[in-house]
Amino acid sequence: MNEAIVQAEKALRKGEVPVGVVIVKDKKIIARAYNKRESKKDATCHAEILAIRKACKYIKDWRLNGCVMYVTLEPCSMCMGAIKQARISKVIYGTNNEKDIELPLVISQNTMYKEECSNLLRDFFKKRRNQ
Amino acid sequence: MNEAIVQAEKALRKGEVPVGVVIVKDKKIIARAYNKRESKKDATCHAEILAIRKACKYIKDWRLNGCVMYVTLEPCSMCMGAIKQARISKVIYGTNNEKDIELPLVISQNTMYKEECSNLLRDFFKKRRNQ
Repeated sequence: MNEAIVQAEKALRKGEVPVGVVIVKDKKIIARAYNKRESKKDATCHAEILAIRKACKYIKDWRLNGCVMYVTLEPCSMCMGAIKQARISKVIYGTNNEKDIELPLVISQNTMYKEECSNLLRDFFKKRRNQ
Repeated sequence: MNEAIVQAEKALRKGEVPVGVVIVKDKKIIARAYNKRESKKDATCHAEILAIRKACKYIKDWRLNGCVMYVTLEPCSMCMGAIKQARISKVIYGTNNEKDIELPLVISQNTMYKEECSNLLRDFFKKRRNQ
Protein backbone atom coordinates (compact mmCIF):
# COMPACT_ATOMS: atom_id res chain seq x y z
CA MET A 1 0.00 0.00 0.00
CA ASN A 2 2.93 2.32 0.58
CA GLU A 3 3.75 2.11 -3.12
CA ALA A 4 0.12 2.91 -4.00
CA ILE A 5 0.34 5.98 -1.77
CA VAL A 6 3.52 7.07 -3.58
CA GLN A 7 1.49 6.90 -6.81
CA ALA A 8 -1.37 8.91 -5.27
CA GLU A 9 1.14 11.58 -4.23
CA LYS A 10 2.32 11.80 -7.84
CA ALA A 11 -1.28 12.44 -8.91
CA LEU A 12 -1.56 15.13 -6.25
CA ARG A 13 1.54 16.94 -7.50
CA LYS A 14 -0.01 17.02 -10.98
CA GLY A 15 -3.32 18.47 -9.77
CA GLU A 16 -5.21 15.20 -10.21
CA VAL A 17 -7.56 13.67 -7.63
CA PRO A 18 -4.95 11.71 -5.62
CA VAL A 19 -5.59 8.02 -6.15
CA GLY A 20 -2.82 5.48 -6.65
CA VAL A 21 -2.70 1.79 -7.53
CA VAL A 22 -0.22 -1.04 -7.70
CA ILE A 23 -0.88 -4.54 -9.00
CA VAL A 24 1.11 -7.38 -7.51
CA LYS A 25 1.72 -10.87 -8.84
CA ASP A 26 3.83 -13.46 -7.01
CA LYS A 27 4.89 -10.78 -4.52
CA LYS A 28 6.24 -8.59 -7.34
CA ILE A 29 4.79 -5.24 -8.43
CA ILE A 30 3.89 -5.62 -12.11
CA ALA A 31 2.03 -2.31 -12.60
CA ARG A 32 1.92 1.12 -10.98
CA ALA A 33 -0.46 3.92 -11.92
CA TYR A 34 -2.12 7.07 -10.72
CA ASN A 35 -5.24 8.93 -11.74
CA LYS A 36 -4.77 10.90 -14.98
CA ARG A 37 -8.33 11.91 -15.77
CA GLU A 38 -7.56 15.62 -16.11
CA SER A 39 -4.20 15.41 -17.87
CA LYS A 40 -5.43 12.82 -20.36
CA LYS A 41 -8.87 14.46 -20.60
CA ASP A 42 -10.28 10.93 -20.55
CA ALA A 43 -13.00 9.68 -18.20
CA THR A 44 -11.60 6.14 -18.29
CA CYS A 45 -8.14 7.16 -17.01
CA HIS A 46 -8.72 6.28 -13.37
CA ALA A 47 -5.64 4.79 -11.69
CA GLU A 48 -7.18 1.30 -11.57
CA ILE A 49 -7.94 1.19 -15.32
CA LEU A 50 -4.46 2.46 -16.20
CA ALA A 51 -2.87 -0.11 -13.88
CA ILE A 52 -4.97 -2.94 -15.35
CA ARG A 53 -3.96 -1.88 -18.86
CA LYS A 54 -0.28 -1.91 -17.84
CA ALA A 55 -0.57 -5.26 -16.07
CA CYS A 56 -2.30 -6.84 -19.10
CA LYS A 57 0.49 -5.54 -21.30
CA TYR A 58 3.08 -6.99 -18.92
CA ILE A 59 1.35 -10.38 -18.56
CA LYS A 60 0.42 -10.39 -22.29
CA ASP A 61 -3.08 -11.59 -21.40
CA TRP A 62 -6.34 -9.88 -20.54
CA ARG A 63 -6.70 -12.34 -17.67
CA LEU A 64 -4.91 -11.21 -14.52
CA ASN A 65 -5.69 -14.30 -12.46
CA GLY A 66 -3.75 -14.46 -9.24
CA CYS A 67 -3.04 -10.72 -9.20
CA VAL A 68 -3.77 -8.51 -6.20
CA MET A 69 -4.62 -4.81 -6.51
CA TYR A 70 -3.65 -2.31 -3.81
CA VAL A 71 -5.54 0.96 -4.24
CA THR A 72 -5.69 4.01 -1.98
CA LEU A 73 -9.43 4.59 -2.56
CA GLU A 74 -12.26 2.06 -2.74
CA PRO A 75 -12.90 1.58 -6.49
CA CYS A 76 -15.87 3.17 -8.27
CA SER A 77 -18.31 0.98 -10.22
CA MET A 78 -16.37 1.35 -13.50
CA CYS A 79 -13.16 0.20 -11.84
CA MET A 80 -14.87 -2.60 -9.89
CA GLY A 81 -16.27 -3.80 -13.22
CA ALA A 82 -12.82 -3.65 -14.81
CA ILE A 83 -11.31 -5.58 -11.88
CA LYS A 84 -13.89 -8.33 -12.43
CA GLN A 85 -13.40 -8.30 -16.20
CA ALA A 86 -9.65 -8.74 -15.66
CA ARG A 87 -10.22 -11.66 -13.28
CA ILE A 88 -8.33 -9.95 -10.45
CA SER A 89 -9.22 -11.99 -7.40
CA LYS A 90 -8.24 -9.69 -4.56
CA VAL A 91 -8.43 -5.94 -3.92
CA ILE A 92 -7.11 -4.13 -0.86
CA TYR A 93 -8.08 -0.48 -0.51
CA GLY A 94 -7.16 2.32 1.85
CA THR A 95 -10.03 4.71 2.36
CA ASN A 96 -13.72 4.49 1.61
CA ASN A 97 -15.35 5.91 -1.50
CA GLU A 98 -18.29 7.77 -0.08
CA LYS A 99 -19.75 9.06 -3.30
CA ASP A 100 -20.02 6.88 -6.34
CA ILE A 101 -21.33 8.81 -9.27
CA GLU A 102 -25.09 8.97 -9.62
CA LEU A 103 -26.31 10.97 -12.57
CA PRO A 104 -29.50 10.78 -14.57
CA LEU A 105 -28.92 8.23 -17.32
CA VAL A 106 -31.51 7.02 -19.79
CA ILE A 107 -30.80 3.48 -20.93
CA SER A 108 -33.22 1.93 -23.35
CA GLN A 109 -33.39 -0.93 -25.80
CA ASN A 110 -34.15 -0.52 -29.48
CA THR A 111 -35.98 -3.80 -30.00
CA MET A 112 -36.02 -3.31 -33.80
CA TYR A 113 -32.35 -4.28 -33.77
CA LYS A 114 -32.50 -6.91 -31.05
CA GLU A 115 -32.53 -9.93 -33.35
CA GLU A 116 -29.72 -8.73 -35.61
CA CYS A 117 -27.45 -7.85 -32.68
CA SER A 118 -28.30 -11.07 -30.88
CA ASN A 119 -27.67 -13.24 -33.96
CA LEU A 120 -24.17 -11.84 -34.37
CA LEU A 121 -23.30 -13.01 -30.87
CA ARG A 122 -25.13 -16.32 -31.15
CA ASP A 123 -23.33 -17.24 -34.37
CA PHE A 124 -19.98 -16.25 -32.89
CA PHE A 125 -20.36 -18.41 -29.80
CA LYS A 126 -21.84 -21.30 -31.78
CA LYS A 127 -18.88 -21.26 -34.15
CA ARG A 128 -16.40 -21.06 -31.28
CA ARG A 129 -17.99 -23.99 -29.47
CA ASN A 130 -17.67 -26.07 -32.63
CA GLN A 131 -13.97 -25.32 -33.07
CA MET B 1 -27.57 1.44 -34.60
CA ASN B 2 -26.76 0.30 -38.10
CA GLU B 3 -23.31 1.84 -37.74
CA ALA B 4 -22.83 0.06 -34.40
CA ILE B 5 -23.71 -3.22 -36.12
CA VAL B 6 -21.11 -2.51 -38.82
CA GLN B 7 -18.57 -2.17 -36.00
CA ALA B 8 -19.72 -5.45 -34.39
CA GLU B 9 -19.26 -7.17 -37.76
CA LYS B 10 -15.68 -5.91 -37.87
CA ALA B 11 -15.08 -7.49 -34.45
CA LEU B 12 -16.58 -10.73 -35.71
CA ARG B 13 -14.25 -10.86 -38.70
CA LYS B 14 -11.30 -10.49 -36.33
CA GLY B 15 -12.41 -13.31 -34.05
CA GLU B 16 -13.54 -10.98 -31.27
CA VAL B 17 -16.85 -11.23 -29.42
CA PRO B 18 -18.96 -9.12 -31.82
CA VAL B 19 -19.94 -5.93 -30.02
CA GLY B 20 -19.94 -2.52 -31.70
CA VAL B 21 -20.46 1.04 -30.51
CA VAL B 22 -20.93 4.50 -31.91
CA ILE B 23 -21.13 7.74 -29.94
CA VAL B 24 -23.19 10.55 -31.37
CA LYS B 25 -23.14 14.24 -30.56
CA ASP B 26 -25.39 16.79 -32.25
CA LYS B 27 -26.51 14.08 -34.69
CA LYS B 28 -22.91 13.45 -35.78
CA ILE B 29 -20.94 10.26 -35.09
CA ILE B 30 -17.87 11.32 -33.12
CA ALA B 31 -16.53 7.85 -32.23
CA ARG B 32 -16.78 4.31 -33.56
CA ALA B 33 -15.29 1.22 -31.92
CA TYR B 34 -15.53 -2.52 -31.64
CA ASN B 35 -14.43 -5.02 -29.02
CA LYS B 36 -10.67 -5.66 -29.09
CA ARG B 37 -10.16 -7.63 -25.89
CA GLU B 38 -8.38 -10.52 -27.57
CA SER B 39 -6.28 -8.63 -30.09
CA LYS B 40 -5.15 -6.05 -27.53
CA LYS B 41 -4.91 -8.70 -24.78
CA ASP B 42 -6.47 -6.11 -22.49
CA ALA B 43 -9.54 -6.67 -20.31
CA THR B 44 -10.53 -2.99 -20.55
CA CYS B 45 -10.75 -3.01 -24.38
CA HIS B 46 -14.51 -3.47 -24.63
CA ALA B 47 -16.07 -1.50 -27.50
CA GLU B 48 -17.70 0.99 -25.12
CA ILE B 49 -14.44 1.87 -23.33
CA LEU B 50 -12.58 2.29 -26.63
CA ALA B 51 -15.38 4.48 -28.01
CA ILE B 52 -15.42 6.63 -24.86
CA ARG B 53 -11.64 7.07 -25.10
CA LYS B 54 -11.97 8.14 -28.74
CA ALA B 55 -14.86 10.50 -28.02
CA CYS B 56 -12.96 12.12 -25.12
CA LYS B 57 -10.00 12.63 -27.44
CA TYR B 58 -12.28 14.18 -30.05
CA ILE B 59 -14.13 16.46 -27.60
CA LYS B 60 -10.86 17.19 -25.71
CA ASP B 61 -12.71 16.72 -22.41
CA TRP B 62 -13.42 13.77 -20.16
CA ARG B 63 -17.00 14.99 -19.94
CA LEU B 64 -19.19 13.75 -22.79
CA ASN B 65 -22.33 15.62 -21.76
CA GLY B 66 -25.02 15.54 -24.41
CA CYS B 67 -23.56 12.48 -26.13
CA VAL B 68 -25.62 9.40 -26.94
CA MET B 69 -24.14 5.90 -27.13
CA TYR B 70 -25.53 3.25 -29.51
CA VAL B 71 -24.27 -0.21 -28.59
CA THR B 72 -25.24 -3.60 -29.97
CA LEU B 73 -25.13 -5.32 -26.55
CA GLU B 74 -26.37 -4.06 -23.19
CA PRO B 75 -23.22 -2.80 -21.40
CA CYS B 76 -21.51 -4.79 -18.62
CA SER B 77 -20.93 -3.17 -15.21
CA MET B 78 -17.46 -1.86 -16.18
CA CYS B 79 -18.87 -0.13 -19.25
CA MET B 80 -21.95 1.17 -17.43
CA GLY B 81 -19.57 2.66 -14.87
CA ALA B 82 -17.49 4.24 -17.63
CA ILE B 83 -20.63 5.67 -19.28
CA LYS B 84 -21.55 7.32 -15.98
CA GLN B 85 -17.99 8.55 -15.36
CA ALA B 86 -18.03 10.15 -18.82
CA ARG B 87 -21.37 11.85 -18.14
CA ILE B 88 -23.02 10.22 -21.15
CA SER B 89 -26.70 10.82 -20.62
CA LYS B 90 -28.31 8.33 -22.98
CA VAL B 91 -27.56 4.77 -24.06
CA ILE B 92 -29.48 2.76 -26.65
CA TYR B 93 -28.62 -0.93 -26.90
CA GLY B 94 -29.62 -3.75 -29.21
CA THR B 95 -29.69 -7.05 -27.42
CA ASN B 96 -29.71 -7.99 -23.77
CA ASN B 97 -26.63 -8.97 -21.79
CA GLU B 98 -27.73 -12.07 -20.02
CA LYS B 99 -24.57 -12.84 -18.15
CA ASP B 100 -22.64 -10.15 -16.41
CA ILE B 101 -19.46 -11.47 -14.95
CA GLU B 102 -19.71 -12.89 -11.45
CA LEU B 103 -16.48 -14.26 -10.08
CA PRO B 104 -15.26 -14.69 -6.55
CA LEU B 105 -13.57 -11.44 -5.57
CA VAL B 106 -12.19 -10.61 -2.16
CA ILE B 107 -12.29 -6.88 -1.47
CA SER B 108 -11.05 -5.71 1.87
CA GLN B 109 -9.89 -2.54 3.52
CA ASN B 110 -6.51 -2.14 5.14
CA THR B 111 -7.52 0.26 7.91
CA MET B 112 -3.89 0.90 8.88
CA TYR B 113 -3.64 3.10 5.78
CA LYS B 114 -7.12 4.59 5.90
CA GLU B 115 -6.12 7.90 7.44
CA GLU B 116 -3.14 8.51 5.17
CA CYS B 117 -5.13 7.73 2.01
CA SER B 118 -8.08 9.76 3.20
CA ASN B 119 -5.96 12.79 4.13
CA LEU B 120 -4.47 12.94 0.64
CA LEU B 121 -7.96 13.30 -0.81
CA ARG B 122 -9.23 15.65 1.89
CA ASP B 123 -6.30 18.03 1.42
CA PHE B 124 -6.74 17.95 -2.36
CA PHE B 125 -10.43 18.86 -2.26
CA LYS B 126 -9.90 21.42 0.50
CA LYS B 127 -7.20 23.16 -1.55
CA ARG B 128 -9.36 23.06 -4.69
CA ARG B 129 -12.35 24.58 -2.89
CA ASN B 130 -10.15 27.43 -1.71
CA GLN B 131 -8.86 28.26 -5.17
